[in-house]
Amino acid sequence: MSKPFLYTILSPELLNIYDIKDSIVVIIDVFRATSTIATALYNGAEKIIPVDSVDKCIAIGKQTPNSITAGERDGKIIEGLEYGNSPTDYPRSFIEGKTLVLTTTNGTKLLHMALNNGAKEIITGSFPNLNAVCSFLSKQNKNVFLGCSAWKNRVNLEDTLFAGAVIHQIKKHFTVHCDSSLMAEQMYALHKKDLYAFARLTTHWHRLSQYGLEKDLEFCVTENVANVLPQYKNGSLISSTNF
Amino acid sequence: MSKPFLYTILSPELLNIYDIKDSIVVIIDVFRATSTIATALYNGAEKIIPVDSVDKCIAIGKQTPNSITAGERDGKIIEGLEYGNSPTDYPRSFIEGKTLVLTTTNGTKLLHMALNNGAKEIITGSFPNLNAVCSFLSKQNKNVFLGCSAWKNRVNLEDTLFAGAVIHQIKKHFTVHCDSSLMAEQMYALHKKDLYAFARLTTHWHRLSQYGLEKDLEFCVTENVANVLPQYKNGSLISSTNF
Repeated sequence: MSKPFLYTILSPELLNIYDIKDSIVVIIDVFRATSTIATALYNGAEKIIPVDSVDKCIAIGKQTPNSITAGERDGKIIEGLEYGNSPTDYPRSFIEGKTLVLTTTNGTKLLHMALNNGAKEIITGSFPNLNAVCSFLSKQNKNVFLGCSAWKNRVNLEDTLFAGAVIHQIKKHFTVHCDSSLMAEQMYALHKKDLYAFARLTTHWHRLSQYGLEKDLEFCVTENVANVLPQYKNGSLISSTNF
Repeated sequence: MSKPFLYTILSPELLNIYDIKDSIVVIIDVFRATSTIATALYNGAEKIIPVDSVDKCIAIGKQTPNSITAGERDGKIIEGLEYGNSPTDYPRSFIEGKTLVLTTTNGTKLLHMALNNGAKEIITGSFPNLNAVCSFLSKQNKNVFLGCSAWKNRVNLEDTLFAGAVIHQIKKHFTVHCDSSLMAEQMYALHKKDLYAFARLTTHWHRLSQYGLEKDLEFCVTENVANVLPQYKNGSLISSTNF
């Protein structure tokens, strides 16, 4: 039996050149949306509603009991929302049982693009939930697209590295005929022992560390510290036990 | 004095997210358009007219004295044109003094996009003319965009590797604040000693080697065997001595 395909899409701008119908799409936004999503679910959030605009975020927040609104543009909390896009904002003592209505610069945008393009199934991935993602993907026998959220459509290293980390673990289950995937895996293999040090060279790290977010960024490149599987169902990301 | 910027654009689909006005754009299509362009000029072609459609190629060929028409789609000579897109098609004994009217799958398309987006200056780059490109760029004190032609907009390794080879040589003259460039340079540094072997892993190599083009592909990853500077002027690529 032939193996399913795996592709890496390095920027949302490149999504349209692939046919993602009936495939699993992994949304990757390492700094910081998908790291925050994993952490909030790991710490007991009931669900996360990813929305692609601030207005929707506020409106849905008002309609949803026991919810909080959160989001950032360019690394800062947006006016009108209550919280930011930092994993450290969501300890269990605060987030357990709550619904997080979240909008971010890149990650939630890509998720909605994937939905509109007919993805069969959407999960989110980040270093904190690396193993859950790999375990899930390797059991599905379906085509997989690793979708990097990038930064304003510019290819970024941290999302590429995470794609590489996934490929490194699960490539034997897939046909990988994709130069972006080959490059991503090699970059991860080259730097897996010093992800902290290497991540400091990325443009996004430079941008966000100006806002005092270094601790956040370190957390976001730490593997398996929030090992849940965020799965998109009926408009929300919920923690699935299917891995 | 601050240094000019250097960015790498991994696919034509990403060109629109950068402001390339007043900058130098290097068109890169390693397999095989820009390798063929360098070789034909090195072997004495008077000029190369890159066109973005087969119809234009035929029409311009008819109007141009001492010209030949050439082009490929998906690695094969197009019906209605005379020659293909292989550097070995253009030895000095054949091409000297002639005008080559050329259309290819990815490279000429990107060149016309760069023109339409207001690039100040356009040159073409490939491993056979690596040093000429580096020498020219390092003296201009202008912003540079390394534009990878990719394959039907999918990011490819061979163009990325060439961008990396350029960055490896000239980065001290530029501000490089671009994750794609960092990645490209690291991939080149990792494989520069075994470019032949590594290039065999690319999807494009697999595609073209099915057509018996292995010798071509090896030539296309050989550095400085056709060290000219193809510069776009008044609709043609000519060999510039400005390097």
